[in-house]
Amino acid sequence: MTATARFISFEGIDGSGKSTQARLLADSLRADGTEVVLTREPGGSPGAEEIRSLLLTGDTDRWSARTEILLFTAARRDHLEKTVLPALDAGRTVISDRFADSTRVYQGATRGDLRHMVDQLHTLMIGREPDLTFIIDMDPATALRRGLARSSGEDRFEDMGLPFQETLRHGFLSLARANTDRCVVIDGNRDPAAVASEIRAHL
Amino acid sequence: MTATARFISFEGIDGSGKSTQARLLADSLRADGTEVVLTREPGGSPGAEEIRSLLLTGDTDRWSARTEILLFTAARRDHLEKTVLPALDAGRTVISDRFADSTRVYQGATRGDLRHMVDQLHTLMIGREPDLTFIIDMDPATALRRGLARSSGEDRFEDMGLPFQETLRHGFLSLARANTDRCVVIDGNRDPAAVASEIRAHL
Repeated sequence: MTATARFISFEGIDGSGKSTQARLLADSLRADGTEVVLTREPGGSPGAEEIRSLLLTGDTDRWSARTEILLFTAARRDHLEKTVLPALDAGRTVISDRFADSTRVYQGATRGDLRHMVDQLHTLMIGREPDLTFIIDMDPATALRRGLARSSGEDRFEDMGLPFQETLRHGFLSLARANTDRCVVIDGNRDPAAVASEIRAHL
Repeated sequence: MTATARFISFEGIDGSGKSTQARLLADSLRADGTEVVLTREPGGSPGAEEIRSLLLTGDTDRWSARTEILLFTAARRDHLEKTVLPALDAGRTVISDRFADSTRVYQGATRGDLRHMVDQLHTLMIGREPDLTFIIDMDPATALRRGLARSSGEDRFEDMGLPFQETLRHGFLSLARANTDRCVVIDGNRDPAAVASEIRAHL
């Protein structure tokens, strides 16, 4: 890995603007001549995208919490091996729209009793964190309106209403406090260009 | 679970006759009035069958060893929760053509370095063994001829030849020695009716 080849993730609740910010950062780095692989989870490699479609289509109760965690982890392992690590090895910067923190926060919010299992499974089967994680913090009511407006049929969490979005927001903020070595919280309640500029300044 | 509701698995190399024996035992128990659910792995529930098709179709190197282990475990968790445990709770005997021992032996033979990971993942995410496991032991050369003769397009291991089948056979025998509380080795090099009769006598 060269000095510029970093693994950067964007996290936050749906509608927080993290996907837009991931793209804006990729554009900005590319404009400066950095080779960037922009990717996402769940998915980000052909196999992981197939697992994504098992996870995000069909009935919401199609999979139990434990089976869902295993499928997310299988998709993440494929994404890591086929997309993330080869890009880093080739000296490219990787920007991922979500990574393991999303599993931690979403499962922590829905099935707090399984949070320790999520961590053990990550340690056993993934064992890699991003070098830098931007957590885009956003007013949950605004984020929820945005999320519902662009509903894609893949949404499982936006139907759960505002209190759940608030739980997720606190989950991400709490995760940031526990991982200050790699997590930076960014105020997303602003013009996207201003948010992008703050993120770029962190690199 | 009633006194007769037992979880029984059949294991062995492809072509050993284990699927035939699983069916013959189910027929025999049903003839005596026992309610039996006959199932198989990978698969055995609608979700697990979808994961099976991800595992068994496409290029053999489609998934890495670790991703494959995660997908097998996801399928097993779904099978356990949707088919095996509900049947046992309802007092039915469950007969499964393969269960976790297959993952242990096949991964042990192909990627021995990951065998400990397979065990840890099983403890963390499955945590259940059959009450009784019949390991159908068969001459690998005979089994390989049978397996190749009925090749279904889902076979990944039979192309690997006789030495690999011998490794698998020794894997199953070694597993039986380490789990004498639940494993019974049955000589499968005989007429199927004689094998079935010996198996039935063990119940």
